[in-house]
Amino acid sequence: MNAEIITIGDEILIGQIVDTNSAWMASELNQIGVKIIQITSISDNPEHLTDALNDARKRAELILMTGGLGPTKDDRTKKVLSQYFNSPLVINEATLQQVTGFFERRGMKITTLNHDQALVPECCTVLKNKLGTAPGMWFEDNGVYFVSMPGVPFEMKNLMIEEVIPRIKELHKGTGIIHRTVQTTGIPESFLAQKLESWEDALPHFIHLAYLPSPGMVRLRLSAFGNDLETLEKEVDQQVERLEAIIPDAIFGYGNQSLPEVIGKMLSHKKSMVSIAESCTGGLISHQITSLPGCSEWFKGSVVAYSNEVKQQVLGVDSSLIEKHGAVSEEVVKAMALGVRRITGSEYSIATSGVAGPGGGTAEKPVGMVWIAVSGPKTTETSVQYFASDRERNILRASTAALDMLRLMLKNN
Amino acid sequence: MNAEIITIGDEILIGQIVDTNSAWMASELNQIGVKIIQITSISDNPEHLTDALNDARKRAELILMTGGLGPTKDDRTKKVLSQYFNSPLVINEATLQQVTGFFERRGMKITTLNHDQALVPECCTVLKNKLGTAPGMWFEDNGVYFVSMPGVPFEMKNLMIEEVIPRIKELHKGTGIIHRTVQTTGIPESFLAQKLESWEDALPHFIHLAYLPSPGMVRLRLSAFGNDLETLEKEVDQQVERLEAIIPDAIFGYGNQSLPEVIGKMLSHKKSMVSIAESCTGGLISHQITSLPGCSEWFKGSVVAYSNEVKQQVLGVDSSLIEKHGAVSEEVVKAMALGVRRITGSEYSIATSGVAGPGGGTAEKPVGMVWIAVSGPKTTETSVQYFASDRERNILRASTAALDMLRLMLKNN
Repeated sequence: MNAEIITIGDEILIGQIVDTNSAWMASELNQIGVKIIQITSISDNPEHLTDALNDARKRAELILMTGGLGPTKDDRTKKVLSQYFNSPLVINEATLQQVTGFFERRGMKITTLNHDQALVPECCTVLKNKLGTAPGMWFEDNGVYFVSMPGVPFEMKNLMIEEVIPRIKELHKGTGIIHRTVQTTGIPESFLAQKLESWEDALPHFIHLAYLPSPGMVRLRLSAFGNDLETLEKEVDQQVERLEAIIPDAIFGYGNQSLPEVIGKMLSHKKSMVSIAESCTGGLISHQITSLPGCSEWFKGSVVAYSNEVKQQVLGVDSSLIEKHGAVSEEVVKAMALGVRRITGSEYSIATSGVAGPGGGTAEKPVGMVWIAVSGPKTTETSVQYFASDRERNILRASTAALDMLRLMLKNN
Repeated sequence: MNAEIITIGDEILIGQIVDTNSAWMASELNQIGVKIIQITSISDNPEHLTDALNDARKRAELILMTGGLGPTKDDRTKKVLSQYFNSPLVINEATLQQVTGFFERRGMKITTLNHDQALVPECCTVLKNKLGTAPGMWFEDNGVYFVSMPGVPFEMKNLMIEEVIPRIKELHKGTGIIHRTVQTTGIPESFLAQKLESWEDALPHFIHLAYLPSPGMVRLRLSAFGNDLETLEKEVDQQVERLEAIIPDAIFGYGNQSLPEVIGKMLSHKKSMVSIAESCTGGLISHQITSLPGCSEWFKGSVVAYSNEVKQQVLGVDSSLIEKHGAVSEEVVKAMALGVRRITGSEYSIATSGVAGPGGGTAEKPVGMVWIAVSGPKTTETSVQYFASDRERNILRASTAALDMLRLMLKNN
C-alpha cells in the first residue's frame, strides 16, 4: 500500500520547527508494510490543501494529514475537508462531551472556539483524541483513505497507535517490507561501492540496497519487499552474511547501534575500562561516550589536553618529546595514551592529536592531519590520518576513526 | 519570490532520518525575503522526480533540490536533470580536478564512480562544493530557477551560503528586509514573553518579532520590512536598545554569536585562560569550546571526571568530601573547579556535577539536578539547577547554564 503524508501549517515552511512527525509516522508505517511515497509540507491556504489532496490521491491509496486542527483562525483543515468531501460540518456529541469535560475539570467554561472543535464533516469516522481537544477524522472516498490528525506530536502519536495503525492493518493485509541496516566505518562510500559491486549486482530483484553516508561512516540499508515475510527474513539474513564475508572489519554494528555503544558492550564484556586523552578532538569523543546512559560502567574519564602544559603537567608527557617531534606526532600521541591510562588506572585508552584547522597547518603537518593512538593491556597502536579542511568535520572524522581503532583492538585482542 | 524545496532519497521516506535540511533552508531563505510554499520529500525514483519538478514549477519560481547526488547507483538526480533539461552529461573539468585532488591528498586513486561525479548536464552552471565531491548545479528554464545540491547537511549549507544565497539575492532585488537576532539565555520562553509583552505590543507594525527557542536559550528575531533600509536600520536599533534595557543580563550576544564565542572574546580581552572540570556534562562544554577556531588562545584544557577516582586522583578532590556530601554536591563541584584551575594553571574554570539521567536519581538528588561552579581570581560561585528527565537535553542545558555563569562572572568582575 502506498501512502502520502501531508503536513499543514506555516511553522515548518518558515523553518521555525523541524518536522519530526513525518519521520516517526514513516518509520511506524514502514513496519506494517506501508510505503511512503511522498511527504508534502504546505501552508494553511485552503486552495493549496485541496490541490495537495488531488495530487496525492493520484499516487497513494492512503493520505495522512497532520496539523491545521487548532481552535484559532489560521487552522482551516476541517472546513477544507468539509468542502472537499461535500459533507456539512456537524457537531459530534462524543467529542463535545469530551471537550466540555476537559475544560470543566480545569474549572473553565468552554468558549465558542472550543465548542467548534466538536464540529466534524458528517461523512467522517471520528477518531477519539484522548490527549487533546481536536478529534482525528477518517474518510473513505472512491477507494482512497484520508486521515486527519492534530500536528501536536504526542496527540498525533497516540492517535496513530490507538486508532489509525489498527485500521490500516485491517485494510492492508498482504505485502510486507523488511529493513536491515548494517553500519560500516573506515571505507569511503565510493570505495565501498566498488568492493560491493558484484554482491550488489547479484542481489535478488526484491531486495533494494541504499548507501547512507555520514562523516567517517556509511550505513547500508537492505529493504526486501514481498508477501512471505519468513522467506524475506531468510534471504536478507543470507545476503548480510555474504556482506560480512566481504568487509568483515568494516562492519561495526547493525540497526541503530552507534560506535560508542558497540565499544561499551565489548568493554563491559571484558570487564575493562577506557579513558581518553583528547587534543584535536577537544572533548567530542568523551561527549559521544557520555551521551550513553550507563557508560560509567566502562568509561573512567578524559583529559582534554588542548595546551602543551596540560599534556605535560596532567598527562605527564615528556616536554622533550614535544620539543623534538611537535605536539602532532606519533611519539606525543602515544605518550598521551599511556599517560591517561596511568593517571586514571584504565585498561584501555584513546589519544588524539592533530591539526583541526582551518589555521595552524604547515607543509609537513597540513590541516586535517591527525595522529591517533590506542592503548591496551597488550599493545599500543598508532595511526595517522589525513582529513580535509573543514574543522567541524575533521573533529568528527577523527573521533570516529579513533573509536574504530579501539573497536578493532578490542575485537582482535 | 516563491520557492519550493524538494528533498530526494529514501532515508526520509522510511523515517530513518529527520529532515533538518529543509527547516534550515527555509529559515535562511525567509531572511532574504523568499517564501517557501511547499516542501516535498520524494524517493530516488526518476519519474517521481520529474513529476515533482513539473508540479513545483507551477507554484514556484525557485526550486531547490537536495540529495541523490552521491556516487552510488541509488543516486539518480543528475541523470533525471539531464533528461529533464534535455542537456547531455559532460565532464566538468574544474570538478574533475577537485575530485582527483581530494583523493590524491589521501594517497588514493580515483575510481570510475568518482570520475563520474564530475559529470554535469551541459546547460547548468556548476556551483563549487568545497567540502565534498558532488558539485552543486544551477539551472534556468523559462524564468524558473532550479538548484541541485547534495543532501549531506554541511555540504548543502556551505553551498547555500557561498553560492546559492548570493545568486538569489542578485535575482531578487526590490523590497527590503532587515533581520536582527538577539541571543538570550537564562529566562524560559514563556517568562520572557511575559517580560517583553508591553515592548512587543508597542513595536511598529512593520517590525515582526519571532521567538526561536532551543535548550536553555531563546533567540529573538526582529524582522523589519520596507523600502527605506536606512530608516528600518534606525528603527530596529532603537527597538533593540529598549530590549536591552528590559533584560540586560539575559542578552549574551547578537546574530549567530554562540556563548563560547562571546566568552572567548571576554577572556582574550582579559588575557586570561579557562579550564573545565566536567562530570555530568561529559565533555560537551569542551567540545563546544574547541569547535571554535583559535580557542587555544583562551582555553587550556579539561578533565572529564566521570568516575570518582578521576575526581580524586586527577583533580585532587578530597575523598572525604565525596563520602560526606556525594559527588553531586556544592562542596564537590567547588573542589573540582578549584582543582582544575590548580592543575592547569588557568585563571578561570567551570565545573559541573549532576544526575543526567535517565537512571541514578534519588528523592534527595533527582534526575535533572545539576551543581555548577565557576571560579575566577576573585571568587568561586556555585548554583544548583533542576532540569527534567531527558539525558541529552539535561547535558545540553547544564552546559549552557555553566557557560552563562562564567559569562556573568567575566562581565561583572
